[in-house]
Amino acid sequence: MSVIASAINKFTNFSSWFDELIFQARIVDSRFPVKGFIVYLENGMFILEMIRRRLEELLVETGHKTMMFPLVTTDELFAKEAEHIKGFLSEVFVIEKAGNKPLEKKLIIRPTSETIMYPMFKLWIRSHADLPFKVHQTVNVYRYETKATRPLYRAREFPWNEAHTAHATAADAEEQVREAIEIYSKVLKELGISYLLLKRPDFDKFAGAKYSIAFDAWNPDGRVNQVATVHNLGRNFSKVFEIEFEQKDGSRALVYQLCYGFGLSRVLAAVIAQHGDDRGCVFPPSIAPVQVVIVPIPFKGYEELITSYCKKIHERLKRIYRCVLDDREDVTPGEKFYHWEMLGVPVRVEIGPKEVSSSKVTLFRRDTLERTEADLNDVEMRVEELMTKIFTSLKERSARIMEQMVVDAYSPDEVKKALSERKIARIEWCGKEDCALKLKEHAGGEIRGSRFDIVEVPQRNCIVCGEKAQEVVYVAKAY
Amino acid sequence: MSVIASAINKFTNFSSWFDELIFQARIVDSRFPVKGFIVYLENGMFILEMIRRRLEELLVETGHKTMMFPLVTTDELFAKEAEHIKGFLSEVFVIEKAGNKPLEKKLIIRPTSETIMYPMFKLWIRSHADLPFKVHQTVNVYRYETKATRPLYRAREFPWNEAHTAHATAADAEEQVREAIEIYSKVLKELGISYLLLKRPDFDKFAGAKYSIAFDAWNPDGRVNQVATVHNLGRNFSKVFEIEFEQKDGSRALVYQLCYGFGLSRVLAAVIAQHGDDRGCVFPPSIAPVQVVIVPIPFKGYEELITSYCKKIHERLKRIYRCVLDDREDVTPGEKFYHWEMLGVPVRVEIGPKEVSSSKVTLFRRDTLERTEADLNDVEMRVEELMTKIFTSLKERSARIMEQMVVDAYSPDEVKKALSERKIARIEWCGKEDCALKLKEHAGGEIRGSRFDIVEVPQRNCIVCGEKAQEVVYVAKAY
Repeated sequence: MSVIASAINKFTNFSSWFDELIFQARIVDSRFPVKGFIVYLENGMFILEMIRRRLEELLVETGHKTMMFPLVTTDELFAKEAEHIKGFLSEVFVIEKAGNKPLEKKLIIRPTSETIMYPMFKLWIRSHADLPFKVHQTVNVYRYETKATRPLYRAREFPWNEAHTAHATAADAEEQVREAIEIYSKVLKELGISYLLLKRPDFDKFAGAKYSIAFDAWNPDGRVNQVATVHNLGRNFSKVFEIEFEQKDGSRALVYQLCYGFGLSRVLAAVIAQHGDDRGCVFPPSIAPVQVVIVPIPFKGYEELITSYCKKIHERLKRIYRCVLDDREDVTPGEKFYHWEMLGVPVRVEIGPKEVSSSKVTLFRRDTLERTEADLNDVEMRVEELMTKIFTSLKERSARIMEQMVVDAYSPDEVKKALSERKIARIEWCGKEDCALKLKEHAGGEIRGSRFDIVEVPQRNCIVCGEKAQEVVYVAKAY
Repeated sequence: MSVIASAINKFTNFSSWFDELIFQARIVDSRFPVKGFIVYLENGMFILEMIRRRLEELLVETGHKTMMFPLVTTDELFAKEAEHIKGFLSEVFVIEKAGNKPLEKKLIIRPTSETIMYPMFKLWIRSHADLPFKVHQTVNVYRYETKATRPLYRAREFPWNEAHTAHATAADAEEQVREAIEIYSKVLKELGISYLLLKRPDFDKFAGAKYSIAFDAWNPDGRVNQVATVHNLGRNFSKVFEIEFEQKDGSRALVYQLCYGFGLSRVLAAVIAQHGDDRGCVFPPSIAPVQVVIVPIPFKGYEELITSYCKKIHERLKRIYRCVLDDREDVTPGEKFYHWEMLGVPVRVEIGPKEVSSSKVTLFRRDTLERTEADLNDVEMRVEELMTKIFTSLKERSARIMEQMVVDAYSPDEVKKALSERKIARIEWCGKEDCALKLKEHAGGEIRGSRFDIVEVPQRNCIVCGEKAQEVVYVAKAY
């Protein structure tokens, strides 16, 4: 069964649309016999790798050293930072045996790597000359999720990039928050993904952080998809891991730290969910596993002419693009169209007798489903133009949907109604956790935080308790 | 303390040389608080990534799909193939808990991924049209080594690439053994690494394989370093995992399988061990984290001239190479020389008043430690020539050492003597495991197998029991 045949709408029936599509489009296979663990297939891996390389390039350019730390930490290290262990204890996998024998010390598999990296930071950081110190790694992390898992969104194993930095002053650490946000924004924008940049409420910050900033991408079902986070750790970890340095005046001080993570599988999910349509995936050209597909439209008497024409174009285009000539003989052009549309190929080149006899090509763009004609001579240039247009239009469409998705709500009932209509509610709030809990109970959504990129000044009262509002915040269900 | 200061010889005191160097050169840090787990630092990661990309490129070109499978398998899957579980049971890490609660089913962390991949193969492979089926992944694997661990050579966590293929016929599988060997040989040869390609004796094959081929790289201490293996699994696994396909005539048959693994950290170890010298690392230009370093030789009155001359050259060379201008002012040229030599930078450009006034540069090559002069105008071309020469000479030197390292031995005593002199012994052998055990007891080395790339016909008797020899085999200690 193909996604197209069933014509499931991604907004009204997101789960079926997504689950069916990621399997059809060879992104992942969820049938692995251990719950919460999935297999990434070749198209999923291709896109993950493209995103990873771009992100790592930006991290290295800004002075982050690429390293790889072990999968495991010890019990004692894991327990050092009190808030941190409280936040993660219930969801860590534990190794107590190797072969059939008990280990001397049990090992904790990383849910994130603070307690693995920071004992090394203590060894490495000596003086102010070592600061700022920035490292990053791309690895899989492991969390025993008890909520329902969904491939790419919430799994017990997921690929991410995590960066960790140390600084001499609180001001330097604040500056680094900006740099981290800039790097992540750049990658997301280059993928055409729209998101809300939010400062999480205090009760929802990272376990052990001073405060947390998050990138919440919109999702067709109205939930938000947290694709990346930036945490200012202050000196909470340096205190317990004793990460000190010698200042210029010879005195010793604790470093200020940040950690930030970029959820590679969640970004992949956002690319699929934000840009896809009822025919399947629509990939931004820069990361599409196949960027151009050439489909011959056979016509009696023209077979050889069409074939050699197609081959010539393939020769030219494959020098520049990931380009496939689909010359299968037992498949109709229509079936080929469906297949490559479902796979998200940005540009299709159609070649029939008309194109051959007039030295033209027909170009089909995946995002708008429009056809245009181009001269054979200009094919590279015209494809390139189309790629640029496709990217711009995907990005703008996503931004427009994000904008339309946010609605103001002035009571818990209005929040409830907004969420039921797959919207994100913007409300004014007093800042008390109690009101957030009440709102969640009534409307089902979480207070995700206030905008970090722009200032929104509250004008009214908290929509729950009626007291003077302290913040403008966004409410949504979340993955 | 620098490696250079202590001038440890890599042949006579390999362990100290290696351990000191990989720390100094920022390859790894072995001080992680869990035994057998190490931290890969930026230079180690850079080279691993270069090797990984080249290997994956060749695998994808030859039709291997890039995938990523879970870290864990279940008890039942792990136990399916009897020989396999026997071979690995004692060294797998086991997860029985998450948070503080016992898991319903315990999980086994991959020591290798047959039992993780093959249940999926059963779902994916349907007909002869699906064959050959080839996948690969680059991941870390985990083995609870009880032998002494050594960074990069033997650890409880190590990065590798593993490929797994399925075929319709035994002949196709044999053909795939050739392809796998070709791919691995290419990568190793491009790194200038020399090795023996050996068919392992039956008692030393991979647990569950029909036979195993291995790449044993030479090591300065006379041991061998198994960097890659290719295993023909026959139908041992397809039988128990029920991986069947429909043949052209409609009947059903089991697939023939291969698995092959490329030990990324062991290849990195081989690069360091084979090419390094008493001054430190010597990296082949293609993978060197820094390919060219420019060192100004300050001279009174010439400071500004020298600086601007260096900057101009830097501008030109950094367009082509990973090129660093070391313009630190508080470090002498001599210290800079030592530093960059230790890090293995292939080419150094030295610029003093003489070079500036004559429009020349002095080029220093890391492998032979020779200096030559070049015209400023030709600097790119001359550096490129030097890079080619350096690679060729590293490769030839490594091949020469490998050749000299192998000596014929005609008795167990001669084997013992050869091994004590850091040699690899070539002997004739009857093929019985008993003789192999006796030899190991007497001489301390293992029979690593017979050449797979050339035919060596035995002429004499087994050096242990005196019966007619069946094979010419190589004996060495191994990591």
